[in-house]
Amino acid sequence: MTTRPRIALIGCGRIGQVHARNLASLRELCDFAIAADFFLEAAEKTASAYGVPRAMSDGEAAIADPEIDAVIIASSTETHAPYIELASHYGKSIFTEKPIALDLDATDRALTAADSAGVRLQVGFQRRFDPGYVAAKNAILNGELGAVEMIHDVMRDPQPPPAAYIAQSGGLYRDMAIHNFDSVRWLMGEDPIEIFVMAGALFSDDIRAANDVDTSVVTLRFPSGAIATIENSRRSGFGYDVRTEIFGSGGGLMVGESRDLPIRRYTSAGVIEDHQYFFLERFRDAYRQEMISFLTAIGEDAAVSVTGEDGRTALRLAMAAEESLRQGRPVSLLPTEVLHAQS
Amino acid sequence: MTTRPRIALIGCGRIGQVHARNLASLRELCDFAIAADFFLEAAEKTASAYGVPRAMSDGEAAIADPEIDAVIIASSTETHAPYIELASHYGKSIFTEKPIALDLDATDRALTAADSAGVRLQVGFQRRFDPGYVAAKNAILNGELGAVEMIHDVMRDPQPPPAAYIAQSGGLYRDMAIHNFDSVRWLMGEDPIEIFVMAGALFSDDIRAANDVDTSVVTLRFPSGAIATIENSRRSGFGYDVRTEIFGSGGGLMVGESRDLPIRRYTSAGVIEDHQYFFLERFRDAYRQEMISFLTAIGEDAAVSVTGEDGRTALRLAMAAEESLRQGRPVSLLPTEVLHAQS
Amino acid sequence: MTTRPRIALIGCGRIGQVHARNLASLRELCDFAIAADFFLEAAEKTASAYGVPRAMSDGEAAIADPEIDAVIIASSTETHAPYIELASHYGKSIFTEKPIALDLDATDRALTAADSAGVRLQVGFQRRFDPGYVAAKNAILNGELGAVEMIHDVMRDPQPPPAAYIAQSGGLYRDMAIHNFDSVRWLMGEDPIEIFVMAGALFSDDIRAANDVDTSVVTLRFPSGAIATIENSRRSGFGYDVRTEIFGSGGGLMVGESRDLPIRRYTSAGVIEDHQYFFLERFRDAYRQEMISFLTAIGEDAAVSVTGEDGRTALRLAMAAEESLRQGRPVSLLPTEVLHAQS
Amino acid sequence: MTTRPRIALIGCGRIGQVHARNLASLRELCDFAIAADFFLEAAEKTASAYGVPRAMSDGEAAIADPEIDAVIIASSTETHAPYIELASHYGKSIFTEKPIALDLDATDRALTAADSAGVRLQVGFQRRFDPGYVAAKNAILNGELGAVEMIHDVMRDPQPPPAAYIAQSGGLYRDMAIHNFDSVRWLMGEDPIEIFVMAGALFSDDIRAANDVDTSVVTLRFPSGAIATIENSRRSGFGYDVRTEIFGSGGGLMVGESRDLPIRRYTSAGVIEDHQYFFLERFRDAYRQEMISFLTAIGEDAAVSVTGEDGRTALRLAMAAEESLRQGRPVSLLPTEVLHAQS
Repeated sequence: MTTRPRIALIGCGRIGQVHARNLASLRELCDFAIAADFFLEAAEKTASAYGVPRAMSDGEAAIADPEIDAVIIASSTETHAPYIELASHYGKSIFTEKPIALDLDATDRALTAADSAGVRLQVGFQRRFDPGYVAAKNAILNGELGAVEMIHDVMRDPQPPPAAYIAQSGGLYRDMAIHNFDSVRWLMGEDPIEIFVMAGALFSDDIRAANDVDTSVVTLRFPSGAIATIENSRRSGFGYDVRTEIFGSGGGLMVGESRDLPIRRYTSAGVIEDHQYFFLERFRDAYRQEMISFLTAIGEDAAVSVTGEDGRTALRLAMAAEESLRQGRPVSLLPTEVLHAQS
Repeated sequence: MTTRPRIALIGCGRIGQVHARNLASLRELCDFAIAADFFLEAAEKTASAYGVPRAMSDGEAAIADPEIDAVIIASSTETHAPYIELASHYGKSIFTEKPIALDLDATDRALTAADSAGVRLQVGFQRRFDPGYVAAKNAILNGELGAVEMIHDVMRDPQPPPAAYIAQSGGLYRDMAIHNFDSVRWLMGEDPIEIFVMAGALFSDDIRAANDVDTSVVTLRFPSGAIATIENSRRSGFGYDVRTEIFGSGGGLMVGESRDLPIRRYTSAGVIEDHQYFFLERFRDAYRQEMISFLTAIGEDAAVSVTGEDGRTALRLAMAAEESLRQGRPVSLLPTEVLHAQS
Repeated sequence: MTTRPRIALIGCGRIGQVHARNLASLRELCDFAIAADFFLEAAEKTASAYGVPRAMSDGEAAIADPEIDAVIIASSTETHAPYIELASHYGKSIFTEKPIALDLDATDRALTAADSAGVRLQVGFQRRFDPGYVAAKNAILNGELGAVEMIHDVMRDPQPPPAAYIAQSGGLYRDMAIHNFDSVRWLMGEDPIEIFVMAGALFSDDIRAANDVDTSVVTLRFPSGAIATIENSRRSGFGYDVRTEIFGSGGGLMVGESRDLPIRRYTSAGVIEDHQYFFLERFRDAYRQEMISFLTAIGEDAAVSVTGEDGRTALRLAMAAEESLRQGRPVSLLPTEVLHAQS
Repeated sequence: MTTRPRIALIGCGRIGQVHARNLASLRELCDFAIAADFFLEAAEKTASAYGVPRAMSDGEAAIADPEIDAVIIASSTETHAPYIELASHYGKSIFTEKPIALDLDATDRALTAADSAGVRLQVGFQRRFDPGYVAAKNAILNGELGAVEMIHDVMRDPQPPPAAYIAQSGGLYRDMAIHNFDSVRWLMGEDPIEIFVMAGALFSDDIRAANDVDTSVVTLRFPSGAIATIENSRRSGFGYDVRTEIFGSGGGLMVGESRDLPIRRYTSAGVIEDHQYFFLERFRDAYRQEMISFLTAIGEDAAVSVTGEDGRTALRLAMAAEESLRQGRPVSLLPTEVLHAQS
């Protein structure tokens, strides 16, 4: 390609590093031109590590820079929506980490901005690009599983995040289960019509103090009659537990339970295998594939695969989950009733 | 032992054959004296196959027979409660297949009869004797899992039962999920306080016609805050799917996914292992162990391990599940409120 | 069947108990009439436990007893051949534990006696009746694996046997690997033409003192060109390790790695499953199936499935393995050369 | 680091692409300056894809280029040794794909050249850097497995290579089993003293025509008494089969059986998982780690981790394997006798 899009990465923290490494190794698809971070040192370190020509601390300047065609927003959550609006103003293609925002108003302003400007906006639901989930989705699409009837979607973090993170996270549903909301509706190919939540703060004083929950089961009903459960815990006691079971008229399928090492130990205590410890390891390939997807959409002037609307819908499911939790009863997700439930 | 209890087996159908074989191979613990079945031929065939001296068609006569010390009730469900009352009247030790009855009144009459007569009454929740579930229970008891926070209990039959069976089964909750209700409360060591059901008849016209469901998710809350989900389907599309996941502060544990054959096939289509097709295979050992438990209780003049009260509680959970399904909302299981919910 | 064969069990030790339990639960197929053991108490205990009418200490008398149609020889190895000769003399059907004898002369005398008398003689290579090995054999027979090219057959005991056992065992090849020799030639459907052994006494002083080996690899070449390895160890360090890999032009297959419990533990140290500890657990079904096979052969007046000739051939392979070990070179198994190698 | 080594990649074919991608993503550790290939187009394509400033067709010129500090030799086998000599002459650090050469003379000339010039020379036995094999080696080093007694090392390619490849490959032992020879002696931490081979051309006419074998079992004895088997096949019938079992006094360990996708399918035909199809997928991490190891050795001015001597020893084992195959007997690997065997 003669004109590879010139990219600015905004935010060089943990998830920013993942994107930086992928951008650096995808030079056929892009020109990684600017690394920006509120802390200049982080931007400079990233630039030096990955051969990026420019480092800066001013994210807005990076977005506005006329040399830049597309931005990767990996900064802190509260900056996502404003950066999306700014990038829309300057006509840049946008990839943003989830969530777009923690409330619907900010989300809608960002979506409207991108929409009005006619720019691409892709949301970082990386799970959709995980080879395992892609294979599952294909098994549904090609009819291998028949009509899908039940999904059981599990996500446990190894340990609760720090109290500071909890306080600004938006809560378990907007921060963590939002991944499950997106993947379940994506797998089903339809949006749920009813939601019920049973949850509690069972083990974390920080989480209880933040009026948040650490243990949760969400039950969703879909128009086809299918039922999905989402099981979340902020602490597994052993590692990162991400698995999804899908059962249909044609059989079942499980995504998950990856091993870090292809090692089995035979000991007097039993046969032992390891498991993966964190999402960065589990979804390493997925982060790379979502970036390829975004860059390819730009290169081929095509639509992105995970839209802002997808991000908005996942947020609405998270909010309805909170509503069900507050009210202790199922909440309808049919258009009018959702309106009512949120009033 | 000089005086092994003399046993009458009432009912020589599918599950009766399982008990017959176990009784025949437990001669140190019992004297298998009578095989009875409404169809005399079935009784005679069983007697001949397992070296049982007498066969008869009259279950009541078998129960009343003065030569008999204990009865194994494996006849059709509607006979369980009357046979328990009769056996209580004659002072016999009683092992009964689940459920005791499909309604609380008949259940209570049977329990009162056994209680008044002071006879042993054990209910056939065989899962409690499965080596896998026993190991799970021990892992909880010995603290290996820490405080239990979540249970996910799965039970899928390979194919729906015939329409005739459905019609008299008492419905998915009293017939099938009753096993899960018992095993979840047994594993937790406490009774749930809230229940919510989302379910439907997704694939079976027979089940829909019977006003029953074929696909169900039950969510239960326990006094400790722990949450359990019970996932049921009348048709898995592949085999018998019985698995239970338990997660606590100390880690997780999964019971399930047995293989019939220790065989892995490496083919161009992938690595293939088999799975078990039906509950008789999956719980072969459990049926033997529960019989040993019952016979040992008699031999040692000790209390049985699964009481009539356990059977009654599981039935009440099944009824509360139906209540939640009817009302489309969570139902409290706290004593007074349950009373209310059932009025 | 009106005339079920009347059985005498000769030898009520460890393996005798396995046969006793199976005979007792196969009353449709046999009449378990006598339990005999050199130690009368063992015979009486067995008779009492399994409802056997008669117990005796004199094995020869049990064999000669006119009430007896068939004998199960589970006594110590040196008695197998004489008991086979005696039972042949009295025209009884014979099931004998392996090996027939530890040398070819005694083996041949026993085979000749059975042959001249025209009585059935089945050898206890129970592995041929294990559901896993049966499935593997069927996969070969039905062409699923294509032409078989390589077999890797593993057998590790959890711990070395006591020194007293070692001393009279006949050595690793006649005592332990003999199972592998039989199963490999049975799976291949042809007899090997060349054998090479590399082995040593690596960890057991008792075994070294007995001039035996505790660690061994046998390589076999078959007429079709296929190559098999047999890996033996008297001590695994963790449990009973019995696995067989078969690779052919159509793919591969592994028999083995059974679990005692269908339990997976998820801990911070990894995912842990158990393994089976000993051959009695691993081959419980196989022992039952081989007894059914023997009793059915009698009932249907048919040929037995594992012949005395099979027992003899396995012994010859064991002896050729010892020859290779002694000479430090491959030994031909072609008829004339084997003769030579053993001179 | 102010002075990252400037690298020339010589050979941009299949394995060259793997190195190119890793070099491109390791910019903190190196400056990927030249991509060279006999076919200029391949070099240019690689340079363009990975942002390499210069592309050229003349490997010798690339090696001699004063701008270059280190060379990665990934060209065809017969060029390895001459390029090593040339790079030694110019004082460059050298990473070479295995084998150094297909005969000992060329190997020794190359090693002598590097040695005399005092340059680093690392050989591409990537398996030593695979996380699974590293964990296995650590389990041996830290005593977890006790004294190692048996190793079973398996390597099957999915399909035989083209006839043209076979013809110039050097045969199964120098081309394929050489990986196993290296990994077994590396795991054991000692060199074997005896070798025996049983092998044949069972399925490939091309391989038979080339007087080579497609199916092979190598047995090795080590000074400690431990025994290793190496199982090779040029065609698995299903995928890439790389597994290594290690058994010691403290238990066992298996490296292998990776899955491409974390997916299990539950079908009426059984439970199905995939397997990896080729070595590039199985050892993707290993190729990256070996490059990090080489670049770090340069950066820290330290010794390389896989030496030319390691490459030479693996070749000698391959030659001794061929000797055993030719002679149909075990071959001693003790210094004097090896001398003799090769005369």
